[in-house]
Amino acid sequence: MTSVINVNLPEQSYEIAIAPSSLDQLGQQMASLKLGKKVLLVSNPTIFKHFGERAIASLTSAGFEVASCTLPPGERYKTLNSIQKIYDIALENRLERSATMVALGGGVIGDMTGFAAATWLRGINVVQVPTTLLAMVDSAIGGKTGVNHPHGKNLIGAFHQPRLVLIDPEVLKTLPMREFRAGMAEVIKYGVIWDAELFAQLEASKRLDQLRYVKPDLITYILTRSCQAKADVVSKDEKEGGLRAILNYGHTIGHAVESLTGYRLVNHGEAVAIGMVAAGQIAVELGMWQKEDTERQNALIQKTGLPTQLPSGVDIEAIIDALQLDKKVKAGKVRFVLPTEIGVVTITDEVPSDIIRQVLRGM
Amino acid sequence: MTSVINVNLPEQSYEIAIAPSSLDQLGQQMASLKLGKKVLLVSNPTIFKHFGERAIASLTSAGFEVASCTLPPGERYKTLNSIQKIYDIALENRLERSATMVALGGGVIGDMTGFAAATWLRGINVVQVPTTLLAMVDSAIGGKTGVNHPHGKNLIGAFHQPRLVLIDPEVLKTLPMREFRAGMAEVIKYGVIWDAELFAQLEASKRLDQLRYVKPDLITYILTRSCQAKADVVSKDEKEGGLRAILNYGHTIGHAVESLTGYRLVNHGEAVAIGMVAAGQIAVELGMWQKEDTERQNALIQKTGLPTQLPSGVDIEAIIDALQLDKKVKAGKVRFVLPTEIGVVTITDEVPSDIIRQVLRGM
Repeated sequence: MTSVINVNLPEQSYEIAIAPSSLDQLGQQMASLKLGKKVLLVSNPTIFKHFGERAIASLTSAGFEVASCTLPPGERYKTLNSIQKIYDIALENRLERSATMVALGGGVIGDMTGFAAATWLRGINVVQVPTTLLAMVDSAIGGKTGVNHPHGKNLIGAFHQPRLVLIDPEVLKTLPMREFRAGMAEVIKYGVIWDAELFAQLEASKRLDQLRYVKPDLITYILTRSCQAKADVVSKDEKEGGLRAILNYGHTIGHAVESLTGYRLVNHGEAVAIGMVAAGQIAVELGMWQKEDTERQNALIQKTGLPTQLPSGVDIEAIIDALQLDKKVKAGKVRFVLPTEIGVVTITDEVPSDIIRQVLRGM
Repeated sequence: MTSVINVNLPEQSYEIAIAPSSLDQLGQQMASLKLGKKVLLVSNPTIFKHFGERAIASLTSAGFEVASCTLPPGERYKTLNSIQKIYDIALENRLERSATMVALGGGVIGDMTGFAAATWLRGINVVQVPTTLLAMVDSAIGGKTGVNHPHGKNLIGAFHQPRLVLIDPEVLKTLPMREFRAGMAEVIKYGVIWDAELFAQLEASKRLDQLRYVKPDLITYILTRSCQAKADVVSKDEKEGGLRAILNYGHTIGHAVESLTGYRLVNHGEAVAIGMVAAGQIAVELGMWQKEDTERQNALIQKTGLPTQLPSGVDIEAIIDALQLDKKVKAGKVRFVLPTEIGVVTITDEVPSDIIRQVLRGM
């Protein structure tokens, strides 16, 4: 069973195809898009070991000439240096404008491959084949690409939409538990900001802390609803003029926590979970959200095994300072996405620092 | 007298404003665009010494907060390393999404500032204030930005349109003669590919080899007609799907010559001049263009003091090989822009290597 979601954009629309074993259909799916013959597959060593051969076999049998390159795993290698390696291999293999880069991996590989494709010859095709839950429901969709600056996450980047997003839920079987949970943070986010039915389904599920307790049907449901939520929002606001900013729910404080812990102690999903708890409480303090709803949200986060408290040792004033560096800052004012009910959020830059301080102290 | 040319694009249109002393109007012109308060002015040390103070004074008096940075001059510094310096200063000055980078300089500064603006926070505003003839009539218009890869020019880049192009012809007075001539190569190009009247005006002018022999009225005419030609082409084909490729007239072999001489011996305009002579002759050999017209073109190039012959020591086979690396290569076939009459060109990828070889041997 293949579930297909359309991302409709003015310049170029594309499909998100979700189906078990679809990794073996990669070449065939790409062939139907009439892309050039040359493909550069970018991955990390672990993912490449698991799935590289299958991806290459599928591409080759569909007639593509495939070169590949692997980059070291982890957010701290999401740098211009890694991009330079992709450029070098693109040059060696004489990638032309009609060529395609394929990102086989998690968010780091997807963001970097997307950015390299956005900037090689001023833009070539990219296909996203996400292998983590986080990348499947979030980073592989919507065209945000980029790398980190030593002093801030994703400060360097471009908008560059993929030609196809291919999701094979079966590849999640090799995903470490902590990574699975990190992805669930974004899934819960969609429930809070957009899809109350998804939220209710998650609440009704007994366990969400490990993939093996989640039935394949529910996984497909979770992927489909989450991708649909992201596609809905991105289709309405490709370049974050307005609505798209709601996807940053939990990310304002989340990014600060991630950055202050050196992108190591706390991963992105965990940081978003902490950020959602904080944002929920801020909304309660401002009288915008019901206390019961924030408790429902936090219970769901806990059921998934994600943190709901600040990691010890993180300085609250350092978080307040770091917020000023956020990309979402406008005229020095920090923008927050805050829930008003399950499935609905609003955006405000009128959150007093004292409220932020107080909420963080309570965590 | 201000001459204003509109570049009409689906996502964002902008003006090219040409007027003597307009450098002092920079701040005022930008203020009318309702950009954010923060500006990062990027220049090179020589240009900054000549014009930096005036630009900053104009910006400051219009209410902008201005930071500045200078980068070493020359094509060989058009690298990701230089871009990283711009990012560092953008971070230090906390440039937000509403901020603007202003490129005050020639093509190298314009391309790099444009690329930095395209990729900082996934895209902030850029204003182009070109100070060389080449940048005024060509690189500052149309949104092509980028840097060089050690093995190829402009291989890394993005499309990112400026919010404004401000041209002050008076700044050309400090431009070295060789740079003036380099710009004239692109002016002649517009005559050949698009504007027979401009071509005729250039033919009718006694001397074109130094700025001081060209009357201010003619300079304004040259700037206006050239910018109009570029704006016409770019408006019809922003991302080089088809028509825009005609701007590469003279650039196919030109880029190869530039690259093989290490971007030092021959500058961009000189390389384009050589490339136009070669392309013209190829068109004649293929029976597409009149011999008399190619002679008119070459006479104009010579009158401007530009080279019409290959620099000694450049290996013809190396040029043939280098053509394969050109961004314009499609499925291994090199695309050439060839004239069919003065003011009209066509695009073909059916030029036999032997014809290229023969023409280059004759130069």
